[in-house]
Amino acid sequence: MAKQKATNVHWHEGDITREHRSRLLGQRGATLWFTGLSGSGKSTLAVELEGFLHEQGALSYRLDGDNVRLGINRNLGFSAEDRSENIRRIGEVAKLFADCGVIALSSFISPYRADRDQVRSLHEAAGMDFIEIHVDCSLEVAEQRDPKGLYKKARAGEIKNFTGIDDPYEAPEKPEIHLHSDQQSLDEEVQIILGELQQRGIIGQTGSKQ
Amino acid sequence: MAKQKATNVHWHEGDITREHRSRLLGQRGATLWFTGLSGSGKSTLAVELEGFLHEQGALSYRLDGDNVRLGINRNLGFSAEDRSENIRRIGEVAKLFADCGVIALSSFISPYRADRDQVRSLHEAAGMDFIEIHVDCSLEVAEQRDPKGLYKKARAGEIKNFTGIDDPYEAPEKPEIHLHSDQQSLDEEVQIILGELQQRGIIGQTGSKQ
Repeated sequence: MAKQKATNVHWHEGDITREHRSRLLGQRGATLWFTGLSGSGKSTLAVELEGFLHEQGALSYRLDGDNVRLGINRNLGFSAEDRSENIRRIGEVAKLFADCGVIALSSFISPYRADRDQVRSLHEAAGMDFIEIHVDCSLEVAEQRDPKGLYKKARAGEIKNFTGIDDPYEAPEKPEIHLHSDQQSLDEEVQIILGELQQRGIIGQTGSKQ
Repeated sequence: MAKQKATNVHWHEGDITREHRSRLLGQRGATLWFTGLSGSGKSTLAVELEGFLHEQGALSYRLDGDNVRLGINRNLGFSAEDRSENIRRIGEVAKLFADCGVIALSSFISPYRADRDQVRSLHEAAGMDFIEIHVDCSLEVAEQRDPKGLYKKARAGEIKNFTGIDDPYEAPEKPEIHLHSDQQSLDEEVQIILGELQQRGIIGQTGSKQ
């Protein structure tokens, strides 16, 4: 962020725009949409990426189950309709953050292609970067990891409509980034994403600000 | 924002927190909740304040009808239930922005005390600043201004349940800031708010960064 001394006390240049905020932050807002099976490593990756971005002086914000499902979406359940509405609202919130100049990191299974494509359209219609990141992982590996014990419950029939077990995961057809979390290291994955952000000019080169 | 050169490529300090983001931005996130009659000048004030904040290098983001009613809340109408849900969602989004380190400027009539108090509780429970700003204005003046022609329609019965006409406006009992937009100038109002933000240490003193 440029250290900008107030040279007068009036603001006469009209409404503050996305471009003003980008200049202030030295980055461009964008939405990074992590999608993949439960246990594929979406959140672990988003957390790690957030640290790397912070170290470079870039502002990002994670949207995940902790702050969304318990907040703005706490009146939604898991019916097909509610799952779509869940993703729709997350997409709208991510877009607001991107508009603010922040790099929004959205980390949800988001199994349905139509829901993700709707969020993509929202962003693209507003001229904003939407980067779909498929955190690909075989069901076998994800189920073996089972960090929250959810696959076990799904197999036992205690959870219904669980993605990968009795509900489909519709893989992205042309994601901006396709990772294989059962073959790549966390560090490799982070470097691939940082490379994409730099190439697009969303952040500056590593170790320097735009 | 501190210009921070990456000295290594790994991040080992755990999850990025609100405090990390505050240090990065040189400000503390907060929600400024403008409430008042249609035509009281809430949005005009929020736009003006945003310019002043930007000039000081502070990052703020406006939530208003344009980006909320047409976005995340586009599936809500104007029934009592939907109006409450409208405010609830806006409150949750503002809280996310405040958590991100941004100064969220929420500008909606938000006529019901219970709805506003719920948003206040959300913030206070999370240790976040919630600054309720009553943009007070007599109904006579607001109706005279009628910038969107809405009072005229409400008087003609074309709009039902219009705040101040056939629906109540429940004024805040103890707002953090009580402005009188029919007596104070826009500049006076802005200076009062900036003073409050400085006093709380949300932003630095005018002309310098924290």
